[in-house]
Amino acid sequence: MSSEAGDWPQEIKQAAERIRPYVRSTPCLEYRDGVVLKLEQLQVTGSFKPRGMFNRMLCASVPPAGVVAASGGNAGLAVAYAARRLGHRASIYVPTPTPAVKIARIEEYGGEVHQVGATYNEALEASARAAAASGAIVVHAYDQPEVVAGAGTVAMELPALDTVLVAVGGGGLIGGIAAWFAGSARVVGVEPDGCPTLAEAMRAGGPVDVETGGVASDSLGARRLGELAWAEVERGHVSDSLVISGQAVLDARRELWSEARIATEPGGATAYAALSSGAYERRPGERVAVIVCGANASPGDLG
Amino acid sequence: MSSEAGDWPQEIKQAAERIRPYVRSTPCLEYRDGVVLKLEQLQVTGSFKPRGMFNRMLCASVPPAGVVAASGGNAGLAVAYAARRLGHRASIYVPTPTPAVKIARIEEYGGEVHQVGATYNEALEASARAAAASGAIVVHAYDQPEVVAGAGTVAMELPALDTVLVAVGGGGLIGGIAAWFAGSARVVGVEPDGCPTLAEAMRAGGPVDVETGGVASDSLGARRLGELAWAEVERGHVSDSLVISGQAVLDARRELWSEARIATEPGGATAYAALSSGAYERRPGERVAVIVCGANASPGDLG
Repeated sequence: MSSEAGDWPQEIKQAAERIRPYVRSTPCLEYRDGVVLKLEQLQVTGSFKPRGMFNRMLCASVPPAGVVAASGGNAGLAVAYAARRLGHRASIYVPTPTPAVKIARIEEYGGEVHQVGATYNEALEASARAAAASGAIVVHAYDQPEVVAGAGTVAMELPALDTVLVAVGGGGLIGGIAAWFAGSARVVGVEPDGCPTLAEAMRAGGPVDVETGGVASDSLGARRLGELAWAEVERGHVSDSLVISGQAVLDARRELWSEARIATEPGGATAYAALSSGAYERRPGERVAVIVCGANASPGDLG
Repeated sequence: MSSEAGDWPQEIKQAAERIRPYVRSTPCLEYRDGVVLKLEQLQVTGSFKPRGMFNRMLCASVPPAGVVAASGGNAGLAVAYAARRLGHRASIYVPTPTPAVKIARIEEYGGEVHQVGATYNEALEASARAAAASGAIVVHAYDQPEVVAGAGTVAMELPALDTVLVAVGGGGLIGGIAAWFAGSARVVGVEPDGCPTLAEAMRAGGPVDVETGGVASDSLGARRLGELAWAEVERGHVSDSLVISGQAVLDARRELWSEARIATEPGGATAYAALSSGAYERRPGERVAVIVCGANASPGDLG
């Protein structure tokens, strides 16, 4: 597939057809007047990631060596899950400091975990070397056209709206959503102040490395915005970037539970935090959709 | 309103109109082939109960003394919430052993909590005396026509189906759903073995007092099936009654979390437990809807 600007809606529609047997069409909740929550945390593996990972694998001729990815988080889970469903081997590279609970989850989905290097980048380099040696195909966590197109299928399931609020890490989700709407809806990126890849890219005029940390770094802590997401920014398909505090994210997470019994991870509550904190002010009559994009955290501190 | 058999669909439609400004139309999740989950635990206050409580209050001329109810659980929360939204006083009677956390929740919604008696029945009697003295109207937890009609509005929001699985405590929810379908869909009641009000009523030929306990007694632990629910059984509108183990309920609750990040209370997972335990065997091609009816439990043991 191509990533030329004009092709995106078609690529996203084709992705939706391809992945339909394997992923859920997640429901929307009319949360309150003018605010719809897209409950994508109910997706298989607990995040939006399988949409892109299935699309990537279904577009490729996967060799016996299978697929390789570098991620201890939602992308790694989704790659392992999609590979198992499609009958492929999955080698998932993670840095040695990765918590045992994350490794166990990937292994539950049948992924072979390789702990290499002190940082994500070292694990990424090891994964590339392994793929080159074995012939396995590389599945990127967010910056491949098939991955972005798969993520964009979320947008096809939204009701009529004026504005979409989307959390941003590497930008796979906002890239796909912005590519789908192509200016026909306002697409607003939301980031906790610990992970400002979009805001820093917009400031610098292009993706730059960012030190990441804070409450949502396990899911939004990509080091820099992907090139495909940046291309959508340059095309004017991303209307705004909002940076909010980590506390606002934690407050939003608690509010989603207390008001609607929606359990999320911090990254999954980040887009909603733009509303609940007042960072995004909804105009009278405006229809806003909020993507609730993940729930891979223990809900033990809720309720 | 009347509870004559022929009137129910009309009463339920009118209830839906009445309560629309105050409750959520909750979404359905296509969980897996042939199985739809109705995510009613996302309702305001975390259970289906506000549908009936709003309908009861909106049908009545509520005096300055407000409303009175006896419940430390989901019904009490919903009465307090609905009363506050509608500007009424709410006096909620609970037995003295009620945990402080439940009392605090009712008070958060603005309910005035009265701890009276050692058992639910003593609290119920105290609530009736208080209502008689003050002129407040009594809101029953499940066995009033307006409450059943409100609960029945859940059925209007379901997609086309063959069978509905519904957890049963006092029977308000199954009564309303059975009254809506009136035989046009199979309505199956599911109960943990600690709370078999429906099964015992069917065995005895009418509602009988049952000793209740076990994993879901906080939400399904009514002492006997309501007369309105029983009338639907007698009309042939309830197809079957399944009794499952408490362990099956706990397993179902964990599965809803691990497979779809749906957090429930045990009573909210009970209908699904009929499927996951194999107690209900779905036939090929059969479309089954499962009502996930509550999430007022700490999610701390999930994930």
